[in-house]
Amino acid sequence: MKRAYNFNAGPSALPLPVLEKAQAEFINYNSTGMSVMELSHRSKDFEQILENAKNLLKELLDIPDTYEILFLQGGASLQFSMVPMNFLGTDQTAAYALTGSWSEKALKEAKKEGKTAVAASTSEGKYRSIPKQADIILPEEDIAYLHITSNNTIYGTQWHEYPSFEGVDLIADMSSDILCKKIDINQFSLIYAGAQKNLGPSGVTLVILKKELLDRIPDNLPTMLDYRTHVKNNSLYHTPPTFGIYMLSLVLEWVKEQGGVDAIQKHNEHKASLLYECMELYPDFYRPHADKDSRSIMNVTFTLPNEELTKSFLQQAKEKGFVGLAGHRSVGGCRASIYNAVPLEACEALASFMKEFRQANVTVSEI
Amino acid sequence: MKRAYNFNAGPSALPLPVLEKAQAEFINYNSTGMSVMELSHRSKDFEQILENAKNLLKELLDIPDTYEILFLQGGASLQFSMVPMNFLGTDQTAAYALTGSWSEKALKEAKKEGKTAVAASTSEGKYRSIPKQADIILPEEDIAYLHITSNNTIYGTQWHEYPSFEGVDLIADMSSDILCKKIDINQFSLIYAGAQKNLGPSGVTLVILKKELLDRIPDNLPTMLDYRTHVKNNSLYHTPPTFGIYMLSLVLEWVKEQGGVDAIQKHNEHKASLLYECMELYPDFYRPHADKDSRSIMNVTFTLPNEELTKSFLQQAKEKGFVGLAGHRSVGGCRASIYNAVPLEACEALASFMKEFRQANVTVSEI
Repeated sequence: MKRAYNFNAGPSALPLPVLEKAQAEFINYNSTGMSVMELSHRSKDFEQILENAKNLLKELLDIPDTYEILFLQGGASLQFSMVPMNFLGTDQTAAYALTGSWSEKALKEAKKEGKTAVAASTSEGKYRSIPKQADIILPEEDIAYLHITSNNTIYGTQWHEYPSFEGVDLIADMSSDILCKKIDINQFSLIYAGAQKNLGPSGVTLVILKKELLDRIPDNLPTMLDYRTHVKNNSLYHTPPTFGIYMLSLVLEWVKEQGGVDAIQKHNEHKASLLYECMELYPDFYRPHADKDSRSIMNVTFTLPNEELTKSFLQQAKEKGFVGLAGHRSVGGCRASIYNAVPLEACEALASFMKEFRQANVTVSEI
Repeated sequence: MKRAYNFNAGPSALPLPVLEKAQAEFINYNSTGMSVMELSHRSKDFEQILENAKNLLKELLDIPDTYEILFLQGGASLQFSMVPMNFLGTDQTAAYALTGSWSEKALKEAKKEGKTAVAASTSEGKYRSIPKQADIILPEEDIAYLHITSNNTIYGTQWHEYPSFEGVDLIADMSSDILCKKIDINQFSLIYAGAQKNLGPSGVTLVILKKELLDRIPDNLPTMLDYRTHVKNNSLYHTPPTFGIYMLSLVLEWVKEQGGVDAIQKHNEHKASLLYECMELYPDFYRPHADKDSRSIMNVTFTLPNEELTKSFLQQAKEKGFVGLAGHRSVGGCRASIYNAVPLEACEALASFMKEFRQANVTVSEI
């Protein structure tokens, strides 16, 4: 069986050894005579899966005991509402740094819950860049938190240095780059991430939050939307997505086997460099969307000199077995999502194809 | 490999042929070179899975085109809030029939969203029964809807005739008995169900709702909690739990292969009768919790003459490979959850064990 070169933006590639392990024990997990999906979420076997996932996250991301780790549902999209419902006080203002469509969506939901301010935006530059610390202007009011989107899948940009303001809680949507590189958890008060890029299958949302934040939550929220519910019940207030959490635990084990986040980061940087070098070699042919200092090691975005060439590139790529290279429907162009589980081989094959395609399509005068 | 006799209350048994099919194509779905989990939720392959699931539901439950079918996240617990947020108008009262812990929880969340009334409750009788139509007293106010829990997993009771009031929208939590028997969809304005009992793995929530209900939804709800968001986007507003929906589609195919809901119902009634007959044979030894006219064909609940015998029964059952027979931690006793995918063989084995255990533990004078 030939594995596809999977550059999907999410749900996306999973490590083959993880899939193989899950397949082997799919019907009979740990000699229970049951699939993981058939285990009670209150059984010892599932509790171990959950604890294992939490412990691996603590280890891989160096999460101190002052943080809680939750596995929820609803993706980043539900977090867009939960964050302000829980932490945007009546007299406070929530500050948002806008770096793309996802941060716009986060802001839109926050506006429904209270007062907000745009602390920075690179929208005028078509979201080609990430704001510098100096570009972020916090409002004078009492700030509930500053929200950022750490990686922008659609535009292919990524924060390389996180903003930091004394006494201001930083909240990050890390759906598309969690575990891709070393971070200092202590810079953040809350991190959330849909699992379907670097963590596992869709349907699980990881939340890592500072315990002291819990004191700020107002009473009378819908029980399911109050973080305290899930903290008190160790993510077992209601039936969690058990199989998704199991797959996530296997992915974390795989990350550890690769040498942890440091090793994964080096690998990711190498993979990304193959594609960016190709674009730097032929800047008139492969035109990057992101500014060099803001570009992402997770999503590499570019366009070709014209629509026709872009179309032809995507068509030929598809025929050669590259999956998911079309840019997001809102911006067009091309995008290679090269999350943790995308193997080096796939990036090498894509870089080769990019060179071949240029060779075959550039006019002689341009060479 | 020996399959466990799985009587878990949810997540629960899945049909073996479904697990086998999913295992076989786990790494290479439909010759894509990818797992279902690795497919884009906007790919043709996944769209087909989603459409297939919807079409099978329409066929199996005879759902007319005046209804929408949605696949959401958050389980019944999030529906407890979404239902009143969307359909409980400012000047209206939402009526709840209380038949157990889950309906109490549904009411608790509704109270946070507006005015409510208890239209019926069997709480005083320890939730041994289901109210009759005549027992349901609707408040005089403008009724937003009447909410019922169609099957009560903890107490082992089930509605056999649904209440019906002219002009009153009936909303049902069918998490634990959807697809277990023939129903007339037209009696309901909205049905919701966590998938983890009769439909598939945990992490998917099925919602079936009458289109005309959508006009009642107020503006400015959190986008993810507004049913219209998911209707407009065919459950693809954000990344859905793709693998869960795939498993659900396989379970629906299996239901169809069994002969549809009619055949499943006969099978379920047969399975339940084996256990209830055993209890009727030894009413002093196996004491049913539910009244005869209210008992469930999904969850069979009973206690033994004393705590010690109950403990011993559960211990020996466990040793013999019966899984999940302990009653819910809130009520104790025993519970056999015999959802659609629990095979007849498991119920036969349990009935035999019940007879043997009684034989070995009843005092001679009682025989």
